[in-house]
Amino acid sequence: MEKLEPYYHTVQYYETDAMAVVHHSNYIRWFEEARLDYLKQAGYPYSTMEENGFMIPVLGVSCEYRKAVHFGETVRVETEIIKFNGLKFTVVYEIYDKECQNLHARGSTEHCFLSKDFKPVSIKKQAPELYQFFWNKTLHNR
Amino acid sequence: MEKLEPYYHTVQYYETDAMAVVHHSNYIRWFEEARLDYLKQAGYPYSTMEENGFMIPVLGVSCEYRKAVHFGETVRVETEIIKFNGLKFTVVYEIYDKECQNLHARGSTEHCFLSKDFKPVSIKKQAPELYQFFWNKTLHNR
Amino acid sequence: MEKLEPYYHTVQYYETDAMAVVHHSNYIRWFEEARLDYLKQAGYPYSTMEENGFMIPVLGVSCEYRKAVHFGETVRVETEIIKFNGLKFTVVYEIYDKECQNLHARGSTEHCFLSKDFKPVSIKKQAPELYQFFWNKTLHNR
Amino acid sequence: MEKLEPYYHTVQYYETDAMAVVHHSNYIRWFEEARLDYLKQAGYPYSTMEENGFMIPVLGVSCEYRKAVHFGETVRVETEIIKFNGLKFTVVYEIYDKECQNLHARGSTEHCFLSKDFKPVSIKKQAPELYQFFWNKTLHNR
Repeated sequence: MEKLEPYYHTVQYYETDAMAVVHHSNYIRWFEEARLDYLKQAGYPYSTMEENGFMIPVLGVSCEYRKAVHFGETVRVETEIIKFNGLKFTVVYEIYDKECQNLHARGSTEHCFLSKDFKPVSIKKQAPELYQFFWNKTLHNR
Repeated sequence: MEKLEPYYHTVQYYETDAMAVVHHSNYIRWFEEARLDYLKQAGYPYSTMEENGFMIPVLGVSCEYRKAVHFGETVRVETEIIKFNGLKFTVVYEIYDKECQNLHARGSTEHCFLSKDFKPVSIKKQAPELYQFFWNKTLHNR
Repeated sequence: MEKLEPYYHTVQYYETDAMAVVHHSNYIRWFEEARLDYLKQAGYPYSTMEENGFMIPVLGVSCEYRKAVHFGETVRVETEIIKFNGLKFTVVYEIYDKECQNLHARGSTEHCFLSKDFKPVSIKKQAPELYQFFWNKTLHNR
Repeated sequence: MEKLEPYYHTVQYYETDAMAVVHHSNYIRWFEEARLDYLKQAGYPYSTMEENGFMIPVLGVSCEYRKAVHFGETVRVETEIIKFNGLKFTVVYEIYDKECQNLHARGSTEHCFLSKDFKPVSIKKQAPELYQFFWNKTLHNR
């Protein structure tokens, strides 16, 4: 399977706080940016998922902060799916500087699949290709 | 008609930016907080409006910044409806410090009424009491 | 030692997302609101800390989401310091509905003490009362 | 003088609200993104300005909303400086879809130059090249 591109984000001024560094809550938003970019690159843009009637809410999140990021800097987010059992999956993220020399932060999010009326969805039936994609991505982790 | 209470907001750390003052975009969010609090006090909470099938989108916004606000300070927002013609209305805001001695900012927002399918709504028919409320509030401005 | 009050937050419209629930990143911001309110109640407002020359950056964060929160609802955040060794401390949070009947989310943040030039600070020397406060709060966890 | 490139922004999920469109406050943030990108393209990145000891705070902002923007869409922001007198300047923005067929919004921001201790700065002295840049950009508006 082809390797997906990392996600790049350039830090905006409104993302900084009074310590003159990026506010820690924004890293959680960058995880979302990177995750949705990842799914889009894989051929499953989130807007299509919503049209197909399901959502991927966040069940849990964690982030470990190593090195502050400043306004104007560009970060590179590496994204990987590490667990998948057909119902839930876990994504891990590493946030580097542009040149990939410093690790700024790393973290994870856990997700499930829900229908629009907030009920669990079996993507094996409703989105078999997406199921296969997740399965292949996480094959080595079973 | 009774006078409504001003709205108070205590500045959060995540609302500051690298200049160590509140980022200017947050004032627009405080206008929304004050506007929805105003409607709630008047007996028309926005959640009820959405349940009744209409929305009040923002058509325009303006803000003039006078004096920066810092983390931990509490601001007092005074809200007034100044125009209403049954289809659109304009709200003006003044943001003071807690003791109301300094004007930090002032601004306005313009709105219309829309149904859930984004079509204009006549609140005169669908929400006659709300219509009457707006009419009374802005009587002196006709 | 006296019991501190829980923190209440009323959900703003701008905190919702296209799923019509609060975006998950905002819980991390509520943790900050609750944490800084907790320190303020304890007599150590963060603005005073910054004036005294030190900061409390976030080293890590985690959150587990149980039940979505909607616009207009008020949540109650219970905050507790559970670890402290003089250099680092951990805070845990539980987010309930106003009446404290449903658990919406729970999580934690880890912190250290830094000087304004981003160097580790010994609060035992520089802020002995704050040190004593943390020590007392977490006495039972040693 | 060379023409600068428009600024592109892809809408993130966290920028949407419960109406399933972008929250209106985010357009103000996009104005900032576009403005700082414009200055960067012109050779005056804001981080350099801050290093040189001055800031460009926002004195006023306005935005007129025409057509909602949705998650996943990419907008194109066209930026122009329309007034400059050495002390203050005004920037106008037009937000289009990617193909530039629909106008989503337009607005403006007004700014001055301040030193780090929040006092007015004469950029004619302190940053003559920046002064010249602004002067040339707005020559036709005098």
